[in-house]
Amino acid sequence: MKVVAVDSFDIRFPTSRELDGSDAMNPDPDYSAAYVILRTDAGVDGYGFTFTIGRGNEVCRAAIDALAPLVIGRDVDDLAEFSTRLTRDSQIRWLGPEKGVVHLAVAALVNAAWDLAGRVAGKPVWRLLSDLDPGRIVELVDWRYLTDALTPAEAKDILERAREGRDERIARLERDGYPAYTTSPGWLGYEDDKLVRLAREAVADGYTQIKLKVGADLADDVRRFALARDTLGPDIRIAADANQRWDVPDAVTWMTALAPYAPYWIEEPTSPDDVLGHAAVRRALATSGPGGAPIRVATGEHVANRVMFKQLLQADAVDVVQIDACRVAGVNENIAILLLAAKYGKPVCPHAGGVGLCELVQHLSMFDYVAVSGRLDDRVIEYVDHLHEHFVDPVVISNGAYRVPTAPGFSARMHEESMSRYAFPGGAAWR
Amino acid sequence: MKVVAVDSFDIRFPTSRELDGSDAMNPDPDYSAAYVILRTDAGVDGYGFTFTIGRGNEVCRAAIDALAPLVIGRDVDDLAEFSTRLTRDSQIRWLGPEKGVVHLAVAALVNAAWDLAGRVAGKPVWRLLSDLDPGRIVELVDWRYLTDALTPAEAKDILERAREGRDERIARLERDGYPAYTTSPGWLGYEDDKLVRLAREAVADGYTQIKLKVGADLADDVRRFALARDTLGPDIRIAADANQRWDVPDAVTWMTALAPYAPYWIEEPTSPDDVLGHAAVRRALATSGPGGAPIRVATGEHVANRVMFKQLLQADAVDVVQIDACRVAGVNENIAILLLAAKYGKPVCPHAGGVGLCELVQHLSMFDYVAVSGRLDDRVIEYVDHLHEHFVDPVVISNGAYRVPTAPGFSARMHEESMSRYAFPGGAAWR
Repeated sequence: MKVVAVDSFDIRFPTSRELDGSDAMNPDPDYSAAYVILRTDAGVDGYGFTFTIGRGNEVCRAAIDALAPLVIGRDVDDLAEFSTRLTRDSQIRWLGPEKGVVHLAVAALVNAAWDLAGRVAGKPVWRLLSDLDPGRIVELVDWRYLTDALTPAEAKDILERAREGRDERIARLERDGYPAYTTSPGWLGYEDDKLVRLAREAVADGYTQIKLKVGADLADDVRRFALARDTLGPDIRIAADANQRWDVPDAVTWMTALAPYAPYWIEEPTSPDDVLGHAAVRRALATSGPGGAPIRVATGEHVANRVMFKQLLQADAVDVVQIDACRVAGVNENIAILLLAAKYGKPVCPHAGGVGLCELVQHLSMFDYVAVSGRLDDRVIEYVDHLHEHFVDPVVISNGAYRVPTAPGFSARMHEESMSRYAFPGGAAWR
Repeated sequence: MKVVAVDSFDIRFPTSRELDGSDAMNPDPDYSAAYVILRTDAGVDGYGFTFTIGRGNEVCRAAIDALAPLVIGRDVDDLAEFSTRLTRDSQIRWLGPEKGVVHLAVAALVNAAWDLAGRVAGKPVWRLLSDLDPGRIVELVDWRYLTDALTPAEAKDILERAREGRDERIARLERDGYPAYTTSPGWLGYEDDKLVRLAREAVADGYTQIKLKVGADLADDVRRFALARDTLGPDIRIAADANQRWDVPDAVTWMTALAPYAPYWIEEPTSPDDVLGHAAVRRALATSGPGGAPIRVATGEHVANRVMFKQLLQADAVDVVQIDACRVAGVNENIAILLLAAKYGKPVCPHAGGVGLCELVQHLSMFDYVAVSGRLDDRVIEYVDHLHEHFVDPVVISNGAYRVPTAPGFSARMHEESMSRYAFPGGAAWR
């Protein structure tokens, strides 16, 4: 099966008009997708995208177009080779390496190739991955720069061990779904009464964890956290998300002030590049919660690649590994990160929201549960109830859990009406 | 003074036809510039660029175009504000943050603004910077994410201390220039006899350090290193550059095999993102040279930003800090890195070569000597004798040293004939 064309699209949703998605670093995002259709000579297409928040989405599209000649006319059956062909082109690699715009663009293409593979196999991607042999899964990973932390042989051992209980876990997933938490109450642009109302609704909807954005103003954050804790009682987890707003000393001061309200984790306390900084924050907050409980440290949505995740684990800098479906180079690199997290015994709680990120990451977490870590404890997938209506196979949430996707592919296909209406700058939503 | 237009250009030199610039990761680079002219309402323009190795240069140009609306119609007199306006646009920041294509594009614009400032002041940029008050230099830095390693007050102290002896150092620079080393003999694509001939010429030209590319084949590298050492004798430093080819264990094995030939440093032994990996390599090679001498570790040309340099210093992971004029966000972020290196007592030896990088970094090293570190020991600027003829104010090298640039600006302006001939894809060189 050969790729005959790569069609790219700049699709933007004017979310800034409602302050949905507002946080301390991103006051007015327009959730966007640099979207790809991988057309093949077999009469079946693959759909993929990378996620941005507006301006610059056209630069990701330009990067997709720059990568397209590497795959057009080439075979798309070997997804290890397909992925490294894109990440290892020496001239384009110079623009990262393996980070930023080119890596976001590789993600769109690799995710589209997996969507295609799922459609061809007639399986959702989580199941396609879970049905692969351990040896084949290991081959999907680019091992360059990883072997001082995890070798292919160790990875294979992890996957072999996870074969026990596999069928029971699939049955449990199909029965109960995969646990979610919700960020919908917590956007920084929302008034207090909207926060309280949405927090109550979250609990009524079956969630056991919510997340609040923090980091713009300490007094506001203390008030909002107190209000949320008062509304929810002691048993609902409330995570905090600073979206990289702080230096290391600020993070410690700020979270110490929020500690009485038992924040479950602090997400992105500082630069996503700062491995040593995260380690310092984590040490400083290890006993800062009520009764000496830890305030956990979480990061990942902006962590550039597997080399950075490797170090966050080697340095014991995080408690929670937040993979993102589109920030690293798609499915293959996320398999590497799931394996690293399993080796170091850290839970993976994916970043989602945006546009289509929930649709993608559910497959990765379900694969993790079935075939890699084999665990659900302390694992939750972020959920935000925006923009799902634009997808042909949207996520289904019930009782605070993601239901197992059943349609073939990666749930990545957008409705053609949405693509047309939100095309930037020509679509009706932008004219 | 306001910006009235940002003109961007995709300029590529077909260097891959001669194997100039070939190394273990980049076998066939076409040295390229995403080039910018910042046009103002004051009748003077600024010139800047970022450097790439070919494919994808158009993506950097697209990123420059995406950033242009942030500066058109705006003031360009405050270069601290100009720089953070570009790095902190929240929607575009999402595409990095502060790394990869968008950061390369910010570099082109910030460097152009400094070129402009130099032209307006009638000074070369090294002198313009050196004449600023310490307090003003501190204000040029974006301190976000740095304060756990270096505070503005500490930086000001470093700069105040460097005022002593300033005039003598300027006089010494004007007399002797700034020491260089040459990479010209060492490209991987060159035959042995060319290597020997160019190494001899380097010594005859007054260089006391050369550099050889390594990492493709161990037996070849041992042969080439032995040949170079035999040709040059014990007193000329020979650095090795692996261009990120190895995992951590490979780096140690390979450099242990080269150790008998006294490599001065190993540059880019592994991923530029791998702070902990560099620290491990450095520890492993600390006494591996002849007589228990260290094999030093160097990196920087692909280090994404000040946060990564901060950690390389905090973790004692490098001996040599290799700033690049265009990888981080131009002059302002490089000032931060020079200050960090001064605090941690590590020499800065800039990456150069490519197209125009020598022209730019000479200003940064001379500013470092005059106003920041105040030191020349173990400091050398890379020099490669390619493509200088395309610049209006090319570097001048004599007796193994960069002569002090005297023309106003950042030496960044390209000849219009070169811009036209090497325009991609329409220029005569590409048709």
